[in-house]
Parts: sequence; C-alpha cells; structure tokens
Amino acid sequence: MAGQLPVSPLALPLPVLAPIAGVRLAVAQAGIRYKGRTDVLLAELAEGTSVAGVFTRNLCPGAPVTWCREILPGGLARGLVVNAGNANVFTGVAGMRAVEATAKAAAATLGAGPGEIFLASTGVIGEKLPAEKIVAVMDGLKADLQADRFAEAAAAIMTTDTFPKGATRTAKLGGVEVRINGIAKGSGMIAPDMATMLSFIFTDAAIPAPALQAMLGKSVEGTFNCVTIDSDTSTSDTVLLFATGAAGNKPTEDPGALADFRRALHEVLHDLAMLVVRDGEGAQKLVTINVEGAVSHASAKRIGMAIANSPLVKTAIAGEDANWGRIVMAVGKAGEPADRDKLGVAVGGVWMAQAGGVVPGYDETPVVAHMKGREIEITVDIGLGEGHATVWTCDLTHGYIDINGAYRS
Amino acid sequence: MAGQLPVSPLALPLPVLAPIAGVRLAVAQAGIRYKGRTDVLLAELAEGTSVAGVFTRNLCPGAPVTWCREILPGGLARGLVVNAGNANVFTGVAGMRAVEATAKAAAATLGAGPGEIFLASTGVIGEKLPAEKIVAVMDGLKADLQADRFAEAAAAIMTTDTFPKGATRTAKLGGVEVRINGIAKGSGMIAPDMATMLSFIFTDAAIPAPALQAMLGKSVEGTFNCVTIDSDTSTSDTVLLFATGAAGNKPTEDPGALADFRRALHEVLHDLAMLVVRDGEGAQKLVTINVEGAVSHASAKRIGMAIANSPLVKTAIAGEDANWGRIVMAVGKAGEPADRDKLGVAVGGVWMAQAGGVVPGYDETPVVAHMKGREIEITVDIGLGEGHATVWTCDLTHGYIDINGAYRS
Repeated sequence: MAGQLPVSPLALPLPVLAPIAGVRLAVAQAGIRYKGRTDVLLAELAEGTSVAGVFTRNLCPGAPVTWCREILPGGLARGLVVNAGNANVFTGVAGMRAVEATAKAAAATLGAGPGEIFLASTGVIGEKLPAEKIVAVMDGLKADLQADRFAEAAAAIMTTDTFPKGATRTAKLGGVEVRINGIAKGSGMIAPDMATMLSFIFTDAAIPAPALQAMLGKSVEGTFNCVTIDSDTSTSDTVLLFATGAAGNKPTEDPGALADFRRALHEVLHDLAMLVVRDGEGAQKLVTINVEGAVSHASAKRIGMAIANSPLVKTAIAGEDANWGRIVMAVGKAGEPADRDKLGVAVGGVWMAQAGGVVPGYDETPVVAHMKGREIEITVDIGLGEGHATVWTCDLTHGYIDINGAYRS
Repeated sequence: MAGQLPVSPLALPLPVLAPIAGVRLAVAQAGIRYKGRTDVLLAELAEGTSVAGVFTRNLCPGAPVTWCREILPGGLARGLVVNAGNANVFTGVAGMRAVEATAKAAAATLGAGPGEIFLASTGVIGEKLPAEKIVAVMDGLKADLQADRFAEAAAAIMTTDTFPKGATRTAKLGGVEVRINGIAKGSGMIAPDMATMLSFIFTDAAIPAPALQAMLGKSVEGTFNCVTIDSDTSTSDTVLLFATGAAGNKPTEDPGALADFRRALHEVLHDLAMLVVRDGEGAQKLVTINVEGAVSHASAKRIGMAIANSPLVKTAIAGEDANWGRIVMAVGKAGEPADRDKLGVAVGGVWMAQAGGVVPGYDETPVVAHMKGREIEITVDIGLGEGHATVWTCDLTHGYIDINGAYRS
C-alpha cells in the first residue's frame, strides 16, 4: 500500500454533526488491514428504527450487500457494523459465513435479532474477511457507545479517502423538528481493489420503512447516481437510511407532510455525493455538467454521463483546455438522439458553439480564466426537447494513474 | 502542439506493400496544420472500381463522413483524398462547402464525377478546413501519381501516430491471385481533438460493391469494432475498401468463391486493428481479452468491452498488477447476465479465480512474470453458456494523461 495521500484540494471541512436521538456510535481498531487507526464502526439504533437501502447494481456484489438485500424487506434495524480494509467480495461461502458471524455477534451485543443488523465492508476484493477480529472488539464497542460520535464514525469508515465526509440538515415534520445526519466514504484509492461508495444516513424522524425507501430511492437517483469518478461501478456501493423515530413526530407516509423532510434528505445526499466527487482519485477540479434540450430527462442524463465518463473530456479539463470538440464527440457517442447542427456548448456560462458551429466572434478570454478555477461548469444544449439533467465528475489526472497503477503490497 | 512523441514500444515495422493494379498514389505537403511533412494523399482508382465503406456511429460526424455516406450507394469510386491536421468536424455549412470543393477539384483532375471521389479528414475539430490548400496541390499530386507509394501514403495520413501502419495479404479468387493492401492511422494524439481511426484498403480483385460491403461490414465487426483505446468514439472513423478489378478475375458475389478473399481481408483488417492498439495513446502493453461462457457472442463482446474500457483494469495492467478483483468488478458492471459464483478469471493462461472464489493453492509466480511482458492475455469464463468474443485494448498510463492533457497551442 502506498503512503498517505495529500488531502484533496477540493476538500471541505466536516460540519458539526449533532447527536441524533436513538443513535449511539462507537469505533474501534480491529486491525483488519490498517494499523494505528480505527477501522470498525458500530451503530446502535433504538428499538423500532425503520430502514431503507439502495445497493450497487454490479452483478458481482459483495457478501454484505447480499446480506443487506436479504434483510431489508423486514424494514427494521437495531444495528449497523461497518469495517474498512477488506470488502468481503468474491469470497464465496467464507464470505457469507463472515457476514453471519458478524451479524450474530452484533445482535447478541445489542440484544437484537441478526436480521436487524446491517453490514457493510470496504477494502480489498478476494481476501477472506477475518470476522473474528470484528467479533473480538464487539464488547469494547458496546461499552464505548455514545451519541456524539459522528466525526469519529466518518473517519473509521475511510479507506484511502483523503478527508472525512459528512452532511446535516433539519426539517419540520408533523410540527416537530427532526435532524438528518449523513456520513459517506468515497473513492480514495491506494491499495488497488478499493472502490466503494458507502453512505449511512441517520434521522430521529418517525417514518415507516416503505415511505423511507421511496424517498431514498428517488433522492439517490438525482445525487449519488449522478456522480461518476471513472465509470467503474463498485461491487459494494451501499446507501442506508435509518429513522429512529425518537423525535416524537407522529409517523406518517403522507407525501405532503413529508415534503420538508424530503427536501432536507435530498440536500444531505447531494452534499455527500459532492464530497465523494471532491475526493475522487487524483481530482483537481470539480466538474458540473448540465444537459438541456434533450428529448427526455433520462436521455439528458445518459448524455451527461457520456461526457462525464469520457477520458478525453476529463484529461482536457485537467489540462485546463475548454475543448468543446471533445464534448461534441461525447454527445455524439452517447447513443441518444442528437443533431449535430442544433448542438450548443457553453463553458463557464459562455457559449462557445451554437447551432452546430463555433459562435462567431467568440472571445476565449473568460473561458480560459474559468478553466483555471477549481469548479468547472459545462452546459450542453441538445436543441431537441425539454429533457434536462445535471451530473458531476472530476478531472482525470496523473494522480489517478499513480493511485491505481501502484502494485498491491 | 507538443513535440514529437517517442515511437510506441509496441510498434511493428511497416511490411512491404507491393503495388495494386488499378491504384496509383501521390502525397503532398499542403501545409494545412503540419509543416515540413506530407499531409495530403490522393489515390487514383481505375475505372469500374467498386467500393465499400463503414463509418463512425458517432451522431456528430464530420463533413467528410456525411459526404462518403451520401455517395457510397453509387458503389463506384475513382479517387480518394485524405488530409491530416484538420478533421472538418463541427464546421457547419463551411464544412460541406470544403468537402464539395475538394471533391470537385479531385474529380476534374482525375476526369471523374464528384460522386466518385471519397474523402476523409483527420485532425482538430471545429476549425474551418482550408480546402483551397488541398485544391492548390491537386495538379502536383496528379503529376506525381505512382503505383509504388503505399509507404508514403501510410505516412501522409498520420496525425500524431508514432509509426505508419500497413498490412498486406494475397488470396485466390476465381483461379487468379489477388492482393489486398491496407493502411490505417490510429489514435496517436498530441494536439487535443485528434482522435480518428482511418483505414483504407485496396485490392485488385473484381468484386461487386454489395458483396464487398457485406464482407467489409462483417470483418470490421470482429476487428476494428473489437478494439478500444479509451472508449471515446471519434467523429471521423472511416474504413473504405476499394476493389479495382484489375487482377482480371471474373467478378463474383458467390460466398464460396469469395472464401479465400474473405479470409485474407479479415487478416488485413485484424493486422491493422492490432497496429492501432499498438499505437494507442501512452500504450505500453497490448491487452487481449477473451470472454467465454457468456449467454451469447454479443453478450461476451459487451463484457469484454466493459473490461477493456475500465480505467481501473487498465491502470492495474499499467502497474503490472494481475488485479482480478477489478476484472470481476468490470464483469459485474457490464449489465450482461453473469453469476458471481460461476465466474473464472485467468491471466496469462493461469486460472486465478474459479467458481466465484480464489483458486486454492494458486501460485502467483507465473502470473507476475506474465504481467511484466508487453502482451497481456486475460480470459474470463462467465460459466453460463457458449457465447465468446475477443477484444483488444492497451493499458492506461501517464503517457495518456500527458498526451491528452496538454493545452492546444
């Protein structure tokens, strides 16, 4: 494993994450792969906590993802165990045994059923997870559970992230103020095989699992599912949302009553997704891509992703080159309806190309200045309809090659 | 534009490309973008030459691609004009005017109709092509036409390729020996916006255009369409096949009679496609990816392309890391039927993972040695069916970032 990476130039400070009633946290050093740092998180959740989850679409998912998918329909959660350093992916029967042993130990510790213990692992693929190391620290974790531990939790789930990631909002729900805290880990990589996006969101609101799931699924679509670092979908991506109900609001599934909560949840997910991009491997610039005028929103998103995943666009941005020819190429290869002669491209708000050609008398000066900044904005007008979408990515730099081309130690 | 790139370590010498009866070639320095080197190719084709073509699927194609698509149904060709340095893409009405002016001048020079003149351009996107510079050298080109000029032709169409690319075969057709010569340019890039795969194939065989088109389309599918450097589809990709008929065989469309020609054509296209990969931007290793056991051949190809386009797989190969965890990830994200617990991965012929887990007692030594070589072979067994495919790519190195992150001069 390579040494410590420098903190991303796009890093933001961790906000203050106040306690959430019904949630207690503890972290420990299990020594699974890392030495001298915490690598296990235990969250205890109040009885009656409802849960929603969204998982990787990768068809070779890790054992913890399989476990979470199986128990999610129960709709109830009493605990969460996360470990960093070993992803427990492609580990066959041994992987499922490790998952069962961890869930059983946490369940006994928290006085719950194993089917109420959610699990996530991140780290190397194809190595057996030594569950006994997690079981060994379980008693210590229980003794150490405290409400005011979100910063420690955000740090314990990092692999080679260069900064901890968290977001928080409050919302009004049934006349009560509820709080939402979220933490996430992103795509900082040094030891190859680490490529996992994990996010855990906690709220004291009382919301039944089906409504929670609907809101989470919808918000993930426009946040986490609209970011890309390198087009590679992890085998372990997991977003879990826990609602303890401790705030005392009357449980509700009414969309109108949930409007403000939905807004706050979306903001937390958006913040976390942006933090993941800001810690993209080798990232030097945060890139926002707006697509408008597509034949549908879905079409706009696919075009946006084709631009965001184009190595030629991303290396041009790294070189501070407003290379709209490459953007045009990416639009054309997206496989979505597009008409070369209606296409427009703007960078930093300046239209460089419109109606299929260079804008006459276009002045490159403000665009050149924009490209030197940390936050780059690209807008593409397809000129065919009303479909629009925004996606986010980072540039492709030597740092990415350094991080991912290093041999596993 | 950056300075001269070092020749790819994967380069192969240009084979001897003997004359093709019915084809005469000339090259010239038009000074469109490059100075002190040839940048225009004129090919004169005997009367009655039939033609087949395959073009980019990018929906924002260059003006020359639009032109070729329009005249291809005529099935006859008398000339080919190729320029390097300016792609004539996203140039609107001016682009079509440049195409028409070039075709008209070449047609007058060769005593043909403009609809028999095929065109291709490669270079920067979004700059007006100064067709008058091509028109100005047309008389000189005509005076200079010779049969023995394939090496010069291969050099004149290069942009930032690091070596010229050609392939040749003979075949028996109707009792006559016919020859097939092909040249290609690949994805050597320094000045951003250059990303065009052009290939021109000439034969003295007499084959009607429909049969020619069928053979070309089928062979491109398993050769050029099975290679990827960086997943970005150019706006100018063009493969043209010209058959002069000068070899004197009786024209035939009979599949049986064409079998040996089909074999030779496929070999020429395969050779050229491999040369393109060998000159991939920053390439240090040639990677062959075999997928077997998929539910269909199409499914196998999509899985192969997901592996070949994965930045995490490609950077691992650059780092000489046989990182099968990343290969598993790429299989899982391909969106094709796959079952984690049936998957096998071999590198350099050694099975590292089988039936969803690491092969017990697997010895890494021969794999480590294989990864240090120039030619890497990956085999993935999906374990579900009989579908198989082979695709080719190169590794992703600092050279790619250097080449594509440099600001346009």
